[in-house]
Amino acid sequence: MTLADASIAPAVLDRAREASRPALRVATARLEPPLARVAAYHMGWADEAGRELPGNGGKALRPALALLSAEAVGAPTAVGVPGAVAVELVHNFSLIHDDLMDGDEERRHRPTAWKVFGPGLAVLAGDGLLVLAEQVLMDADEADGDRAARLLTEATARLIDGQSQDLSFEARLDVTVEECLTMAGNKTGALLACASAIGAALAGADERTVQALYGFGHHLGVAFQAVDDLLGIWGRPEVTGKPAWNDLRRRKKSVPVVAALASDTTAGRELARIYTDEGPRNEEGLALAARLVEEAGGRARTETEAARRLEQAMACLDSLDVPQGTYTDLTSLAAFTTTREL
Amino acid sequence: MTLADASIAPAVLDRAREASRPALRVATARLEPPLARVAAYHMGWADEAGRELPGNGGKALRPALALLSAEAVGAPTAVGVPGAVAVELVHNFSLIHDDLMDGDEERRHRPTAWKVFGPGLAVLAGDGLLVLAEQVLMDADEADGDRAARLLTEATARLIDGQSQDLSFEARLDVTVEECLTMAGNKTGALLACASAIGAALAGADERTVQALYGFGHHLGVAFQAVDDLLGIWGRPEVTGKPAWNDLRRRKKSVPVVAALASDTTAGRELARIYTDEGPRNEEGLALAARLVEEAGGRARTETEAARRLEQAMACLDSLDVPQGTYTDLTSLAAFTTTREL
Repeated sequence: MTLADASIAPAVLDRAREASRPALRVATARLEPPLARVAAYHMGWADEAGRELPGNGGKALRPALALLSAEAVGAPTAVGVPGAVAVELVHNFSLIHDDLMDGDEERRHRPTAWKVFGPGLAVLAGDGLLVLAEQVLMDADEADGDRAARLLTEATARLIDGQSQDLSFEARLDVTVEECLTMAGNKTGALLACASAIGAALAGADERTVQALYGFGHHLGVAFQAVDDLLGIWGRPEVTGKPAWNDLRRRKKSVPVVAALASDTTAGRELARIYTDEGPRNEEGLALAARLVEEAGGRARTETEAARRLEQAMACLDSLDVPQGTYTDLTSLAAFTTTREL
Repeated sequence: MTLADASIAPAVLDRAREASRPALRVATARLEPPLARVAAYHMGWADEAGRELPGNGGKALRPALALLSAEAVGAPTAVGVPGAVAVELVHNFSLIHDDLMDGDEERRHRPTAWKVFGPGLAVLAGDGLLVLAEQVLMDADEADGDRAARLLTEATARLIDGQSQDLSFEARLDVTVEECLTMAGNKTGALLACASAIGAALAGADERTVQALYGFGHHLGVAFQAVDDLLGIWGRPEVTGKPAWNDLRRRKKSVPVVAALASDTTAGRELARIYTDEGPRNEEGLALAARLVEEAGGRARTETEAARRLEQAMACLDSLDVPQGTYTDLTSLAAFTTTREL
């Protein structure tokens, strides 16, 4: 296991964006104009009125994994493009619907799609992106396109399971760490797993290879979510673009919080007492909650989990004979997504 | 063309419901419990608390078409079951999301899913049903399952196009009859077309046969929608379960209204003048609007369209050599859906 330098990751992502963005835009243009407009706004290509915007939209982690997954089995990058487009479409379907469900009013410093276009069009545009993702794969080269479509459908089902589990955690104080990690595996892991395997599936790779790449993405996804959860509490606002202690303010049942609540420690019990909707939301209360999560071992448990999952991801990758350049790119993305600055 | 007696249709529907309902319930149970609960409530099997209800849910037109489509090519009914389940899941996905988008508070004399469980769970349950439909087909016998999944994905994309077109008509007074029929072909025709072809696709029928059955369902769908639009204005409340002139009250751009508005007649121009959101919504105003639609030829135009489409549907069916019993069942459904009492 040789984790490459995270500093090359931005270049890897830029290259993936350039390779997949034209096909992504062609696909999105197949939607009815009102839905294409919502999609273009949400993806950051256009303003509310449909005027082209400079800039390059999201960070394209999933497309990058999909393209590298084709390269990992020796196929040309282009073979992975339908996969890159499909996973990015499903990712954006879930963001648009989740923002509505969660009542989030801002994403990437702009009003969310449902705030701008209304809940109705946001629901329908999300539906459109989801179905479009399947179409893009089914239009790809016959048999392998169907295999990729199966991977994507299964991942999407798990993503929806994960969102349902996440919503159901809101009302509970007795969520276990295991349940929380399963939820993260569904909500974040499944689509990263699919992205990491779909290019290889499109290239017609053998099942063992596809499964190993799937495992890489799955564990990476859980590690990524664990780090995201750490950032949600201790991330500095100037880095995350969100207020300090944001997840605590929202009473999120993230991994560190759940680990603390389940810790059977004095700090954990104190946290349980104040971690209700009626609990304090002022800065002092939030600072106290953050301290209690740390004292109860929630932070350390989450850091250990992230490290362990990153190791497991690397073990999956190391079980394969991936070309050196692709290996470097994949591991740089792994480093980039799991060693972000707090 | 021999249109069978519509009176045998209820028995055809009952048989289809019995043949497909167990598989539909097994599939739905794969959802996370909170989503399965929304689905069971919406489909009429359970009350809000998840307690089993007597009765048999919806009328199962789409499952019946799917099962008959397998029988039409000489396959056992069971071959069509995954198709019957999948089209019913997609139909219910669209009902749950459409009710939310349209702000409808009642369906089949009960509060709609979003009213009972909130918009968030309604969105997610709809998403879950959509993905489940793909899974059911992909789990069916390999190659033919993928072929059926393609049919379903294309139909779902068109259904979403149709809903988008329908929403965009709301703000326009210049919708053409052609646009309106295209919308109906997408919103209603595509899924009936898919249902009518999917059993044959699962049975491995040749492409010409699948396309002819698809055509039958497509034209039947447009005829069905035209009749539904007539009922939406002139249907008697005791038959439709909805208030008189319901579509006029809601300012719907249905086929008769659009035909009247586009008619270049005095009555059509008078209708355009009053058919705005600010126009009268009292009983006299609605009665006047209904009379203007009829005077402008909107009713006759729609009746002609329904009859023409039914003929086209029958021509598609007559191009095939369908076993006599199946032919009788299919045409009884065609008669049943297009000759409902006003």
